[in-house]
Amino acid sequence: MARVRRQPGTKEALLKYDNVVVLEPEKRCGRWREYFGNDQPIWIEVGMGKGKFLRTMARQYPEINFIGVELIEEVLLDAVKRMEREEGIPSNLRLVWMNAVQLSNIFAEGEVARVYLNFSDPWPKSGHKKRRLTHQIFLDQYARLLAAEGEVHFKTDNQGLFEFSLNEFSRCHWQLKNIQLDMYKKLPEGNVATEYETKFHLQGMPIYRLEAVKPV
Amino acid sequence: MARVRRQPGTKEALLKYDNVVVLEPEKRCGRWREYFGNDQPIWIEVGMGKGKFLRTMARQYPEINFIGVELIEEVLLDAVKRMEREEGIPSNLRLVWMNAVQLSNIFAEGEVARVYLNFSDPWPKSGHKKRRLTHQIFLDQYARLLAAEGEVHFKTDNQGLFEFSLNEFSRCHWQLKNIQLDMYKKLPEGNVATEYETKFHLQGMPIYRLEAVKPV
Repeated sequence: MARVRRQPGTKEALLKYDNVVVLEPEKRCGRWREYFGNDQPIWIEVGMGKGKFLRTMARQYPEINFIGVELIEEVLLDAVKRMEREEGIPSNLRLVWMNAVQLSNIFAEGEVARVYLNFSDPWPKSGHKKRRLTHQIFLDQYARLLAAEGEVHFKTDNQGLFEFSLNEFSRCHWQLKNIQLDMYKKLPEGNVATEYETKFHLQGMPIYRLEAVKPV
Repeated sequence: MARVRRQPGTKEALLKYDNVVVLEPEKRCGRWREYFGNDQPIWIEVGMGKGKFLRTMARQYPEINFIGVELIEEVLLDAVKRMEREEGIPSNLRLVWMNAVQLSNIFAEGEVARVYLNFSDPWPKSGHKKRRLTHQIFLDQYARLLAAEGEVHFKTDNQGLFEFSLNEFSRCHWQLKNIQLDMYKKLPEGNVATEYETKFHLQGMPIYRLEAVKPV
């Protein structure tokens, strides 16, 4: 994640976009299907950044409801503005401004069908490893909010984070599959590239990818 | 594995080394402890090549019995000769000239404590994948001959083989740990380098490593 220049007034600007940014998301806990007005599966992206991945996915899969979670309000506001400007807000896409450690407050057990993690902050220092979105602290949360056989799909350009994640998922008894150490050697069908992904790939860096099925 | 020049008379030469090459190993099945004359755990290396890893390990761990398995007689003979020439034959090290598909004929269920795979032939063509020593065909054999909580320790310089192996171990419900995507960034304590490993590492190539615990 790049450093973000903090801008006063962002919070206030965000609140105006209550058509796409869900205010008081904890009130929707266990009732997201009601909120969307249909029974479609819910896929979430944790740390959605500028939102290209999520808005492309939302158009590609109208039969799925998408929720993007982002901690930094400037990043979220930027994502909302891009969405408005470029294609309008898809009706199957909503955003939540929140720290990922609070995921359990907004989703009931088994309410989510899939979690996407794309180019998450690697937090390379050992003392920061509890902040990595694939640390057991988070995996246990994902396992709780995911339905049976629910999956985490994870991409990164960061070798250290990927290595850590392989070990952490395995240690926590997630079943790994479709592990790729250089994704562009055999691009998965329907791959949606994020802004970071395109940038790093064009620089010739390998992109790592895995899917993990929650423990039985 | 490099190509090997076939040399007539190799088989006959090997038979003379019956102090280290175990002839008729299937007769030892379930009776290796008896053969070694002690109750030490047994660690095997499948595809031992020139044998540097195994003979170093045998000296480093006198409390373990080691068995090297090698298919190609020229390679095995070369390993035996090096051993004799350099330090003599350790009493806790024996070699078997055999195809790895026959492992189950020479080891009883649970008779082995650990399996090492070092720089195994990657067999890159998809049509050859059943020959990879981390294909399910072999993993199922290792699981059978390994004792409870027995482990496979695997190193390779080959990205494609490592990726395949991560997926195959996971699919077969082995528990992965100590996965490393660039082992020399943080060399495990007591690492014993093979001939290939040193060569590839000096060429600047990453060495991949994992440990896998057999399914419960």
